[in-house]
Amino acid sequence: MRRAIELASRGLGSTSPNPVVGCVITDPAGAVVGEGWHERAGGPHAEVHALRAAGDAARGGTAYVTLEPCNHTGRTGPCAQALIDAGIARVVYAVSDPNPQASGGGATLRAAGIATEAGLLADEAERGNAAWLTSVRLGRPHVTWKYAATLDGRSAAEDGSSRWITSPESRADVHRLRAEADAVLVGGGTLRADDPHLAVRGVEGAVQPLRVALDTRAGLPASARILDGAAPTLIVTGEDADTAHLPGTDVLRLPLRDGRLPLDLLLAELYGRGVRSVLLEGGPTLAGAFLEAGAVDRVVGYIAPALLGAGPAALAGAGITNIARAVRLDITEAVRTGPDLRITAVPANAPKEH
Amino acid sequence: MRRAIELASRGLGSTSPNPVVGCVITDPAGAVVGEGWHERAGGPHAEVHALRAAGDAARGGTAYVTLEPCNHTGRTGPCAQALIDAGIARVVYAVSDPNPQASGGGATLRAAGIATEAGLLADEAERGNAAWLTSVRLGRPHVTWKYAATLDGRSAAEDGSSRWITSPESRADVHRLRAEADAVLVGGGTLRADDPHLAVRGVEGAVQPLRVALDTRAGLPASARILDGAAPTLIVTGEDADTAHLPGTDVLRLPLRDGRLPLDLLLAELYGRGVRSVLLEGGPTLAGAFLEAGAVDRVVGYIAPALLGAGPAALAGAGITNIARAVRLDITEAVRTGPDLRITAVPANAPKEH
Repeated sequence: MRRAIELASRGLGSTSPNPVVGCVITDPAGAVVGEGWHERAGGPHAEVHALRAAGDAARGGTAYVTLEPCNHTGRTGPCAQALIDAGIARVVYAVSDPNPQASGGGATLRAAGIATEAGLLADEAERGNAAWLTSVRLGRPHVTWKYAATLDGRSAAEDGSSRWITSPESRADVHRLRAEADAVLVGGGTLRADDPHLAVRGVEGAVQPLRVALDTRAGLPASARILDGAAPTLIVTGEDADTAHLPGTDVLRLPLRDGRLPLDLLLAELYGRGVRSVLLEGGPTLAGAFLEAGAVDRVVGYIAPALLGAGPAALAGAGITNIARAVRLDITEAVRTGPDLRITAVPANAPKEH
Repeated sequence: MRRAIELASRGLGSTSPNPVVGCVITDPAGAVVGEGWHERAGGPHAEVHALRAAGDAARGGTAYVTLEPCNHTGRTGPCAQALIDAGIARVVYAVSDPNPQASGGGATLRAAGIATEAGLLADEAERGNAAWLTSVRLGRPHVTWKYAATLDGRSAAEDGSSRWITSPESRADVHRLRAEADAVLVGGGTLRADDPHLAVRGVEGAVQPLRVALDTRAGLPASARILDGAAPTLIVTGEDADTAHLPGTDVLRLPLRDGRLPLDLLLAELYGRGVRSVLLEGGPTLAGAFLEAGAVDRVVGYIAPALLGAGPAALAGAGITNIARAVRLDITEAVRTGPDLRITAVPANAPKEH
């Protein structure tokens, strides 16, 4: 199962709106005869890849799958039936499928006389699929807030300069995060201050995420780097914004609420477009709004061993005034990225992920 | 030598103005026959402890010492002579003594026909003695700035509440830091806001540090917790401050410079009083002033996995406006203290310590 989880992770960033899934098939003697993972939406599921690799050797064997095999016919046939047809004797899966459209695969297998076992390494498999599972459970994309700051929590110096707070290693790591996400999101302040590009560079085989810019009045110039052809882009703006200077740009109009774009509507729209995971890249005010809305599922901070003593903080305006109301998290990982430290945390008492 | 370094560390916090030193003595066959460490200023040096433990077994043997044996007669006799008298054949020391008063021990030993070897595990031994070595080299105490903050760099919430940002484990760890320091220092803002106690609790055998409060106008009330008898206290104030309400309190008066207590004079005064290491406990403005003066030798940050989005930053007013002027550090350690993360860093390109 651990191998299946490892295989599953190879699909991160390219399978949405589907989950990542890995599958390992062993023959009756327990020897591995087939492996596979879900590589991209519309492509074969993990079980199908693994069954193809195993061929006749699958007969009477065991399939280890990170997620309950699906029971529905979408762009591909149901995996439960494929496993039955291949003569698999036993199916072990880590996590039950929470998707009402696809669930019931376990029952179908059992009805066909196949022994099933659920829950093996479930925590580990959940972590690997955290974005998709959160997304299906909440009906909105899983949101990772990524920030870079000094040890004293500054994301820029007093004069606004911020290139570079973190190391090349950390910046390369951010491209990996982007590649794993379906969409990368920035606010108007960051858009104007940094003219970010947001496409993935330097990650082999990466599927470019959707670049989403929240820009209440559509003030960004047509020359903005985010509008180039390196990746798809969506400009989210107010209902009445003038977008005449942005012909050919994909624009989503939302009704403003208190002068701001409503994050719940935004996330619902993105979910409807198949976005299951969002990487929130800034700035501090937008992050504060997401936090206040309870829409941050994971925090990834790149902490540079530097001190500034002045300058904007990484997070602002989350509506918290007293220490008792602090958003408490659990650190799930702290590792070096070059000279920096990458800290990953999830809301306290939430299922752990990495 | 590694064992000697380990022994030396037991003296941290109780040997000032002396260094911490450890000594292991082996007989001619290489068996350990004596161990010792410098336990407190005025008490026997490490070598003397180890020689006493070894007795006659030291004859013809080797002494491993973390620091070059001293050559001068202070409150105790010179260790070089003690090693000669004991018939030691070979002395291996890690770090040469930079103290002009005490150095020359190596030469004395060689003149007496004893083989000497310097530099074994020197980096490791330097780290263990970092505070004292820095202190002797710079003629001022070694300064550790300790802070506690959320992931977004806040040391309190917007309303000033800060109890507690960090975990009980982190707070216990701070008492260990205090126990290792000769003095603990706070500024007037922290004094008024938190009425801190600053004595060491819960560390067995700890020598209480000198509690130093910078209070420009001596505004603290006689009822301040820092004035209790749990540890010695020094109030540092301006030349003209009225201290009539603080009878019996040890007061150091310094001429104000731009309305502030001059840190260079303060550190020189503390050095003159035998203080070799200072733990700077806050607040943000005082830390900024120390940083601006280049008087922070180590940073220890307790980072709680919490987010506030508002509230005072851990560091303020260090006089840095552009990212190019950021104070760059190297992280020497990052470990969990309960749910928190303790990050230790030293100025980039400085000798590494922990």
